[in-house]
Amino acid sequence: MAKKVIIMVRVNEYMPRHPNPHVPFTPAEIAETSAECEAAGAAIIHFHARKPDGAPSHDAEDYLEIVERIRARSNLLIDSTLGQNTIHGDEKRAAHIVRMGESKVRADLAAVDVGSTNLDVYDAQAKRFRTTNKTYVNTTETCIYLAERMREAGVKPHLTCWTIPFLRAADALMDSGVFQQPAYVQFAFCEGGILGGHPCTIDGAQAFLRCLPKDKRIEWTVTCKEGNLLPAAAVALENGGHLSPGIGDYPYPELGYPTNAKLVEFFANLARAWGRDVASPDEAREMLGLPQRATQAA
Amino acid sequence: MAKKVIIMVRVNEYMPRHPNPHVPFTPAEIAETSAECEAAGAAIIHFHARKPDGAPSHDAEDYLEIVERIRARSNLLIDSTLGQNTIHGDEKRAAHIVRMGESKVRADLAAVDVGSTNLDVYDAQAKRFRTTNKTYVNTTETCIYLAERMREAGVKPHLTCWTIPFLRAADALMDSGVFQQPAYVQFAFCEGGILGGHPCTIDGAQAFLRCLPKDKRIEWTVTCKEGNLLPAAAVALENGGHLSPGIGDYPYPELGYPTNAKLVEFFANLARAWGRDVASPDEAREMLGLPQRATQAA
Repeated sequence: MAKKVIIMVRVNEYMPRHPNPHVPFTPAEIAETSAECEAAGAAIIHFHARKPDGAPSHDAEDYLEIVERIRARSNLLIDSTLGQNTIHGDEKRAAHIVRMGESKVRADLAAVDVGSTNLDVYDAQAKRFRTTNKTYVNTTETCIYLAERMREAGVKPHLTCWTIPFLRAADALMDSGVFQQPAYVQFAFCEGGILGGHPCTIDGAQAFLRCLPKDKRIEWTVTCKEGNLLPAAAVALENGGHLSPGIGDYPYPELGYPTNAKLVEFFANLARAWGRDVASPDEAREMLGLPQRATQAA
Repeated sequence: MAKKVIIMVRVNEYMPRHPNPHVPFTPAEIAETSAECEAAGAAIIHFHARKPDGAPSHDAEDYLEIVERIRARSNLLIDSTLGQNTIHGDEKRAAHIVRMGESKVRADLAAVDVGSTNLDVYDAQAKRFRTTNKTYVNTTETCIYLAERMREAGVKPHLTCWTIPFLRAADALMDSGVFQQPAYVQFAFCEGGILGGHPCTIDGAQAFLRCLPKDKRIEWTVTCKEGNLLPAAAVALENGGHLSPGIGDYPYPELGYPTNAKLVEFFANLARAWGRDVASPDEAREMLGLPQRATQAA
């Protein structure tokens, strides 16, 4: 039987509500989205804490409230951001993870970007860069620090790779015991003028796949910043990978500006059409080497 | 007739003289190497200024002396480093290029790394990183600054790409007119525990090739830090690319610790065996859109 597909829905990132009005901001909206997405076939929810006006929140209590509310509404695995390039300093980035460790309310997974890349946006129409100084720096030291805080907190790192050196660093950090196997690795493709990752094309996706370490247990998934995930999704579906779509990344005008749940439904149907059923949250826990929820509860 | 191959020899980088004792340090040694490499089939020499004990030199006068001495001994095009990750600050990195612009003694080309990546070295035997904080930061702003200084000095940028986002940035910077076409693009593969670029494998090389912008005039070449260039060379020879070997990158024990000239001879013979002759310095000038030497002399 073909391996099941883990769908991780990326519900909001730092996306505004225009042109797609369905982006959840508040804890209640995120929790409501989680219930809808679980019904549609998702196994994991990845979220960013936002203020009611949509601004990034770095308040640990906001993160905890969101986790609590999602747990009350769904069985989804919960995957937290560290705030991406909107917050700087290792301690600040890990503060809500440390807080989760002290609390009973914690996420199952959190994102670590295992390398550095420039994230400036190029405006091809105007033929100029919109920014020229956005280097997203994640030193190896930072990755080790974040991995340690997550281990202490009981949160599994999900390893985001923007370029092939990120994947090589993830491999070395598994080899040296900093990250555990099976690893959950996410390839982040970039469209919409963001040049910091591979283009979301079959070639861009295969470039990662061909450099995947053969001696490690890795469950890998694909996402696309500011673009349609379909080309990378095709490569993932054919090659045992998983899918991480979401209206937090891209408003999907091609699909009529769907809700997150409608988008999950679309990709779940695509997976089934490809001959692969979707994994339930419990099946995803098993594949990612996470404890079942019953044993995790306090 | 098959396109000719431009061989750029990377004579020294910051490589020590152990285990390969033939690495040139002084201006006289670099100039002697240039004459030998031209005879063996090279068209361009890429060099790093070094102190007599091999330490990196960032003294503009050292760069000028090397350029003068190479010109006196060979017709090779001259490609200068900016000091890679051994010197920081845009002005300091460009100081010798600015000085070349004021002088009559200037290089034809100089390297710009068009992006950021982590350059830590992983020791697979010891299962630990040797360094954990070596992020090589080149903001888009820095690239634009360096391009401007080179334009003023009459030195053509050679665009080094460690990852696919570097290539996307190079594309955008050509599109916006910062870099001129034909562009000279170098793919830098990484072996020997350096994880900051693609592995030097056929897959690692094809990953770049498949993302090459189709609407730009690009002459591309391949080099390999701390490893044998052969797999990337094979991809380059089959696909109209060029070669940048050198004992500055790797001591080549497989070839008996050759001199730079012997290494050039090896790759020139490989190119001919692949059905492609090597380009002379004048032919390389033509292909890279550089003025012929007679018109450039003061």
